[in-house]
Amino acid sequence: MKRYQALADDIARSIRQGLLSPGQRLPSVRQASAARQLSPSTVFQAYYLLEAQGLVQSRARSGYYVSEQARTLPPEPDAASQPDGESRPVDVSELVFEVLESAMAHDIVPLGSAFMSPALFPLAKLGRAMAHEAVHLDPRSTVDDLTPGNAELRRHIALRYRIGGVELGANDLVVCNGAIEALNLCIAAVTRPGDAVLVESPCFYAALQVLERHGLHAIEVPTHPRDGIELGALATAIARHRPKACWLMTNFQNPLGSTMPDAKKRELVELLARHELPLIEDDVYGELHFGTHRPAPAKAYDRHGLVLHCSSFSKTLAPGYRIGWAAAGRYTQQVARLKLTNTLATCVPAQLAIARYLQRGSYERHLRRLRTTLAAQQSAYLTAVAEHFPQGTRVTRPDGGYFLWIELPEDRDALRVHREAARRGISIAPGPIFSAHRGHGHCLRLNYGHPLDARVAAALRVLGGLSSVRSAPA
Amino acid sequence: MKRYQALADDIARSIRQGLLSPGQRLPSVRQASAARQLSPSTVFQAYYLLEAQGLVQSRARSGYYVSEQARTLPPEPDAASQPDGESRPVDVSELVFEVLESAMAHDIVPLGSAFMSPALFPLAKLGRAMAHEAVHLDPRSTVDDLTPGNAELRRHIALRYRIGGVELGANDLVVCNGAIEALNLCIAAVTRPGDAVLVESPCFYAALQVLERHGLHAIEVPTHPRDGIELGALATAIARHRPKACWLMTNFQNPLGSTMPDAKKRELVELLARHELPLIEDDVYGELHFGTHRPAPAKAYDRHGLVLHCSSFSKTLAPGYRIGWAAAGRYTQQVARLKLTNTLATCVPAQLAIARYLQRGSYERHLRRLRTTLAAQQSAYLTAVAEHFPQGTRVTRPDGGYFLWIELPEDRDALRVHREAARRGISIAPGPIFSAHRGHGHCLRLNYGHPLDARVAAALRVLGGLSSVRSAPA
Repeated sequence: MKRYQALADDIARSIRQGLLSPGQRLPSVRQASAARQLSPSTVFQAYYLLEAQGLVQSRARSGYYVSEQARTLPPEPDAASQPDGESRPVDVSELVFEVLESAMAHDIVPLGSAFMSPALFPLAKLGRAMAHEAVHLDPRSTVDDLTPGNAELRRHIALRYRIGGVELGANDLVVCNGAIEALNLCIAAVTRPGDAVLVESPCFYAALQVLERHGLHAIEVPTHPRDGIELGALATAIARHRPKACWLMTNFQNPLGSTMPDAKKRELVELLARHELPLIEDDVYGELHFGTHRPAPAKAYDRHGLVLHCSSFSKTLAPGYRIGWAAAGRYTQQVARLKLTNTLATCVPAQLAIARYLQRGSYERHLRRLRTTLAAQQSAYLTAVAEHFPQGTRVTRPDGGYFLWIELPEDRDALRVHREAARRGISIAPGPIFSAHRGHGHCLRLNYGHPLDARVAAALRVLGGLSSVRSAPA
Repeated sequence: MKRYQALADDIARSIRQGLLSPGQRLPSVRQASAARQLSPSTVFQAYYLLEAQGLVQSRARSGYYVSEQARTLPPEPDAASQPDGESRPVDVSELVFEVLESAMAHDIVPLGSAFMSPALFPLAKLGRAMAHEAVHLDPRSTVDDLTPGNAELRRHIALRYRIGGVELGANDLVVCNGAIEALNLCIAAVTRPGDAVLVESPCFYAALQVLERHGLHAIEVPTHPRDGIELGALATAIARHRPKACWLMTNFQNPLGSTMPDAKKRELVELLARHELPLIEDDVYGELHFGTHRPAPAKAYDRHGLVLHCSSFSKTLAPGYRIGWAAAGRYTQQVARLKLTNTLATCVPAQLAIARYLQRGSYERHLRRLRTTLAAQQSAYLTAVAEHFPQGTRVTRPDGGYFLWIELPEDRDALRVHREAARRGISIAPGPIFSAHRGHGHCLRLNYGHPLDARVAAALRVLGGLSSVRSAPA
C-alpha cells in the first residue's frame, strides 16, 4: 500500500463515516503535507485519487471539497435484521433459479448479477501465464497436481495468508473448483441430512441452495448491515436449536456488505469453540477492501481447527478459471477425500496458470487498481441511488466488495420490482432470495461492479421508478 | 478406420476368441489379398500391426504365425459373479482411500492406478490450443460459458454422438468437472438418501464412494466378465428391492473390461423403462475400443429420456483438464441446476481449448494411435501375466480400455497381495474395493495403460510371486 493510498483511504473513511461533511473544504495540499509529514506530491496524488472515486471535487483556484452529492445520500440501514428464529428445511432453489434464469439473457443490464465486469480482470496477462504453462505442461502434473492441488499454487496462497497474519501452510489447503465446491465439501464434512445450520439474515442465496441440496435446516440469525451477525442472538440460537455448524461471510458479506470487526470475529470463534461448533467461513470478497488493510478472516483466530475457511480467485483475479480452496482445519483430510469423490481434481492448467501469475508478482498491483475502481463505482452508484430512489430508501456503504444493499420503504415489493425490471431488460437481486423464510421482501441487492455507463444510469432511473410504487395491500 | 486396421482387428478378434490358435500359420499375404479382395500392401500393413501388438510373429521365409505365447495364456474368467443380492448401505470409502493413498507415492509402479500413462496424450498440441484460447479469451465468455457450458464444445461433443448414431443435440449436454461430477449430479437428480441403487459386481469403486456419500444403498447384481450385467438377475433384483436407479458401465467396464452387446443394451434400456427406472450410464472408456467400431452407449436406445449418460475427455484426450459431461435426458435441467450449486461452472479456458482442438480435426487420428498402443500393451501384459502368475489364474481379454481383471485361485488374498506389493513399491487394485460387500477377495485389477518397460516387467514378476502364496486358512 503506497503512502498516498493510505492517506486517501483515511480521508475516504472519514467521509463515509460523516466526520467530513459534504461541501466541507479539505486542508490545502501544503497544510496537509505539513500536518501529515508527507510530501506535497503524495497529498496531491491522494486528493486526485479521491476525486477519481467521486468523493471530493476540485474547484478552480479554491482547492478540494467533499463532494456535494454526498449530502443527499440516503441514510444507511441502522438496525439488525429480525428473522423469526425458527429452524426450517430450506426450499429456496426454485425461486432463486427463477430469478437467476430471468437474468441470463445476454443483453440484460446486470445489476442483479453476482459477477463484476470481466473487463476488470487481467485476463490477457493471466492468459499468457496459462499459455506458457499449457504448452510446457509436464505430463506427470496431470497426476501429481490432482487433489489436494498443485503444491506451488498452494504455497503461494498460504504465503498470502501468512503475510496477512494467518498461520496457514500449503498442506492446510485443498484446491477446489471455486469457493462453491469448497463450501459444499466443508458443509458435507461437518453435517448430516436433517442437521441445522446457523446462517446470517439475509445470507447468500447459494449458501441456502447448498443447505437445501444437503437436506439441512437453516436458522437465520439477526445480522447488522455494518458489522455482521449478532453474537448474542447467535448464542441464543445455539442454545435453542443445537445446530451442527455456523456458515458466515465475515468480510463484505453478500448481500449486506457487512464486515465483522476483528474483536467480534475473535469473540465469534471463541463462542463457537466453546460449543465445539464448526464455522464455515466464506471469505471470497476479503481481498476487495477499500481501506488500508485486508480485514482478517475469522480463521486468523482459530486455535482449535474448527474454522473451515473457503475462498477463491473468482472475484479477484480469474473468473471462469474456477480455482478456489478450503483451509478446513481438523477436517482437511475429510474435505480432500470428499473432493476426490465429488470432482476428483481441479483443472491442472488453470492451477498452474494462477501459480505462475502469482509468482510473477503483479497480483497486488492488479488488486490495488481493482479496489480503487470498485470504490469509485460505489460512489457513482450511491449518487445515482440518491437521485432516483424514493424517499425512505436506505442504502449501505460497504468498505469493500461490489454490492449495495437497498432497503426500500416497507410497503414496497422487491419481487415485483424484480419482475417489472426483468421485463424491461434489467436484472436485480430481490431480498427474498437471500432468506430461507422469504424475508427481506422490501430489499434489493445492487451490483456496482460494472462501470456506470449511460445504459446502467438509465436502468438505475427505471429501478428507482419501479421502487416508488407501493405494493397493493395484502 | 483404415482397411488394414479393420483387417487387423478382425484377425486379432479371431485370435482372442481362439478361432486361430497359437502357432497356426496365417494365410500368406497373396492368399489373404485374393480372399479378402484387398491390396497386398493392405494385408502386409495389417500383419505388421498385429506383429507390433505381439499377436503374430513373422518367421524368416515362412510367413506369419499366431504368437506362440498365446498358447500359454491363462483362460478367461467364464462365469458371472455371484454377489449375495442384498441391499446394503455402502461403507467402502475407508478401504478405498487406504488403498489409493498407499498408491500415491511418486515412484510407485502404477499397476493399481486408474490412469494410463499421461505420455499417451497429445498434451503439447492441446496446450497450443489452450494457449491460443487463453490469450484471446473474450471476457464475456467468463460468464457466457458457465453452466451448461461452452456452446461450441457442446456442439462438437453432440456431433461425435450423432456420427455414432446417437441422437443428441448440444442442448442435451451439461459440461461438468470430469465424468465424476456428472455422475454425482445424475445420481443426486434421481435418488434421495436411503434409496437403493443397482450396480455391477464388481463395480468401479468411485461409484460405490459416490453412493456412500449420498447415503444410498447398493445392490450388486451378477455380472459376466465378457458381456456385462445379467439381465435376468437384474429383473429379479428390481422386483425384490424396488431400487430407484441402476448405475452401469456398459462399455469396457471398470474393472472387468466387459462390454454389453448391442442387443443386450437395448433389452436393458427396455427393461428399465418398463419399471420407469433411470439408468446412470458411465461410458468414459467407450472411445478406447480395439475393434472397428465404437460400441454404442445404452443412451442410443433411450426413447424415454431415462438414460443419464456421462462421459469425459479424461481417459481419451485431456487428463487433468477435468472436462466431462452429462446427457441426462428428462433430468437435464435438474442436473444443470445441481451443477450450479455444486461447482457453478467448469473451467472456461479448458472448455475452449478442447473445443478448438476438436475443431482442428486431429482427435480421431490421436484416438486411432492410442487404441493401437493400448491393444499392443494388452498383449504384452497378458504375456507377462501368463509367464509369472500361478496355475489356476484366469484373466480377461477386453476389447478396449486399459484394465485386465485377474482372478487368482480362490485361496489367494488380494488385499494381502496389495499390502505386500505396496511395501515393494508396486500398486495394484485389489478386488474388495470394487464391492459393497468386500467380495472378489481373490481378484486384482491390473492397469496396462503404461508401457511394459523393465520396471513394470519386474513388478509383474513380483506380483506373480506374491499371488502364488496361499492365504492362511481363515
